[in-house]
Amino acid sequence: MSAAFFPQDIIVKKRDGGRLGRDEIEFFARGVADGRFADYQATALLMAIFWRGLDAEETAWLTDAMLRSGEVIDLSDVPGPKVDKHSTGGVGDKVSLILAPLAAACGVNVPMMSGRGLGHTGGTLDKLEAIPGFRVGLEVGEFRAILRRNGLAMIGQTPQVVPADRKLYALRDVTGTVECIPLICASIMSKKLAEGIDSLVLDVKSGRGAFMKRKEDALALARAMVAVGRAAGKPVVAQLTAMDEPLGRCAGHTTEVIESVECLRGRGPADLMEVTYALTGHMLVLGGVARDQADARTRMDAALADGSALGKFRAMCEAQGGDPRVIDDFSRLPTARLRRELRAGADAHGYVAEVDALKCGHAIMALGGGRAAVTDRVDHAVGLSDIIKVGEPVSPGTRLCTIHANDETKAAAAEQMLRSAIRFTPTRPVPVPLVQEVVR
Amino acid sequence: MSAAFFPQDIIVKKRDGGRLGRDEIEFFARGVADGRFADYQATALLMAIFWRGLDAEETAWLTDAMLRSGEVIDLSDVPGPKVDKHSTGGVGDKVSLILAPLAAACGVNVPMMSGRGLGHTGGTLDKLEAIPGFRVGLEVGEFRAILRRNGLAMIGQTPQVVPADRKLYALRDVTGTVECIPLICASIMSKKLAEGIDSLVLDVKSGRGAFMKRKEDALALARAMVAVGRAAGKPVVAQLTAMDEPLGRCAGHTTEVIESVECLRGRGPADLMEVTYALTGHMLVLGGVARDQADARTRMDAALADGSALGKFRAMCEAQGGDPRVIDDFSRLPTARLRRELRAGADAHGYVAEVDALKCGHAIMALGGGRAAVTDRVDHAVGLSDIIKVGEPVSPGTRLCTIHANDETKAAAAEQMLRSAIRFTPTRPVPVPLVQEVVR
Repeated sequence: MSAAFFPQDIIVKKRDGGRLGRDEIEFFARGVADGRFADYQATALLMAIFWRGLDAEETAWLTDAMLRSGEVIDLSDVPGPKVDKHSTGGVGDKVSLILAPLAAACGVNVPMMSGRGLGHTGGTLDKLEAIPGFRVGLEVGEFRAILRRNGLAMIGQTPQVVPADRKLYALRDVTGTVECIPLICASIMSKKLAEGIDSLVLDVKSGRGAFMKRKEDALALARAMVAVGRAAGKPVVAQLTAMDEPLGRCAGHTTEVIESVECLRGRGPADLMEVTYALTGHMLVLGGVARDQADARTRMDAALADGSALGKFRAMCEAQGGDPRVIDDFSRLPTARLRRELRAGADAHGYVAEVDALKCGHAIMALGGGRAAVTDRVDHAVGLSDIIKVGEPVSPGTRLCTIHANDETKAAAAEQMLRSAIRFTPTRPVPVPLVQEVVR
Repeated sequence: MSAAFFPQDIIVKKRDGGRLGRDEIEFFARGVADGRFADYQATALLMAIFWRGLDAEETAWLTDAMLRSGEVIDLSDVPGPKVDKHSTGGVGDKVSLILAPLAAACGVNVPMMSGRGLGHTGGTLDKLEAIPGFRVGLEVGEFRAILRRNGLAMIGQTPQVVPADRKLYALRDVTGTVECIPLICASIMSKKLAEGIDSLVLDVKSGRGAFMKRKEDALALARAMVAVGRAAGKPVVAQLTAMDEPLGRCAGHTTEVIESVECLRGRGPADLMEVTYALTGHMLVLGGVARDQADARTRMDAALADGSALGKFRAMCEAQGGDPRVIDDFSRLPTARLRRELRAGADAHGYVAEVDALKCGHAIMALGGGRAAVTDRVDHAVGLSDIIKVGEPVSPGTRLCTIHANDETKAAAAEQMLRSAIRFTPTRPVPVPLVQEVVR
């Protein structure tokens, strides 16, 4: 800490493939915030890290230094296990909205800080804000009080948490240094470890609609994050899942809130529930309220059947200013003016071979439901529902999905994108496992 | 030019090993100057270039874009050939001070813009400024007039020339992106091509006291610079020379001016004259005043013998405000207070195996004769003379060099460094060729 480093010496060391010391990494993470490490030096180092990588220990040090650049929330006064889940993001991934109330109903506290959508992937905060009145910008004191009372709270990052990540992320975003596993790992883990959790479940997605296209990259990221958790003394389980088609049958904001409520009523689509059960199950085991995945499943089924999971969702809405009446009356959610069914053409025969999640995400952006830049506003009402799934049979006229739009031209653009997203095959495709490896 | 590029797209392209287009490189070189390419984006791209390189065409485009970021001097009204020489720098390298008057005496105009010393290597401008009154900061008009009249002028870079290089160099200096062959090439060549020359001779040094330690790097740089010259339609000859021991027997400022004048009187040390003859010879051939190196040598010997080369040095001093009386009275040069002879110890037997040029350079810095930062002031009076050469016999008491110092403590520090710079061997070492390959 006290040593006087020159940024260029640290850059040269990494540039030449060297291993940075803990104090050098701390100087970097702090220096970026306090200006001793100029932006133009930070970006040169980020590119050198992109090139040369960081080993497990360097990554853990960077995570720790970033974490300590701001406030670390203390939840020691909240009794019971505190477990969070983070997903690397996908299309139609509304798991958090189901998992958090479900885990809370089973006795695990879920102090969840989420992000907004960017590009083709949606964000949990935007989905929650489809609920009229829902406040994601709670102060830490209120967050803690609600968590203590209800066992769950879902908010955005407070500015006091991990300021170094905000600065570094902004620089990475404009310098081609985003897709770098150790930097992604440190960014995610520093924010999660700042939440005051005991343990963490990660959903690391790979495939067409994921940030990571290749499973080996997802696996590398999963391993890096588990290692950082271990170094910080926080057990982490990472579940690898496929993200080639949208998760569930809905994508957007209002449409995803509706599908989440249906899931909490026990009426969720199979693929979405499979991922939700797997991730929530890990949380219950990590939190010590279930012996294993089978025991967890029994408890989750009970919480869905007796309405306690949906009750937690209702309590969360009430606590955070959201109108709980939306649960029983979806028309209270922002609703799109136009609803258009996309149907298979005259030559459609056989089965769905592919529903390209990336193209679906771009269709939602075309509707106005996504963000190209962080400052963009999203239209919560627009999106997709009734999305057909890979392996389902098709014939001429089969409904492929329903488009919710507020503008004719945008609807037409989205329709064209969705047509190119969906491919057919004459023979039933071999199912690809959705829930894949577990890294712990 | 007109196309709208995003800096991050250019960075990502190079990061992934792609080849940049001419318009992308122009956007970068101009954007760095006009702010459309932020410093923190420029340094990320510089690191990506350090990693991935630039091919010959990309390097030529970058050189051209940098060159056109500022004023290009027009010397078309100066009759006769205009040829310059550039050296990548070394210890005791005072070749320019001898070569420029010698070439001018043989009928080649030498419009030389040089730099200052930094680190262990000296700079031509600093050496010239050891001559009382010598002005290196001429305006372009005066530079042109003197060149027309005398056939040589030696000045510093004007601020109007290649502003993009100044900006990029300052960024490279603090971000570990200096030692990158295409960037070095573009930096050197953009400045030289802005001088309005017809052709160029390069002295690319490698070895212990050079910027490039390995000959293969020097060769790669030489080839890159020759290729850029060809792309610009300017013939370039690059001479590779060894820089393991200091060139000549003097290093510093006053001491090097004295040695240069001795060379112009035909009394120069063999190694220094070998390099000077080779480089000046290439200039005479490129300038069309000599058929080949042998013919050039005849002309150079004549110009040294008849005093015309020394006459050109005198004319240059007079034209640029320097006191020409120093030529006949070295005591008019800044003279150090202390003069200390370093002699071989009682165990010295055999031959000199090594005189480490880098350590000699550091000894001069310890005396106050070098710069650690560009803003440092140098003491022109201090330095070394009578430096023993590799292969010369030694016995106890043999003089190894003379230290010129203005401070006892600094003299002692330099002495210690010099002792560690000089190694002996019982058997006569095999001579290593000083003047090596030629690339054209």
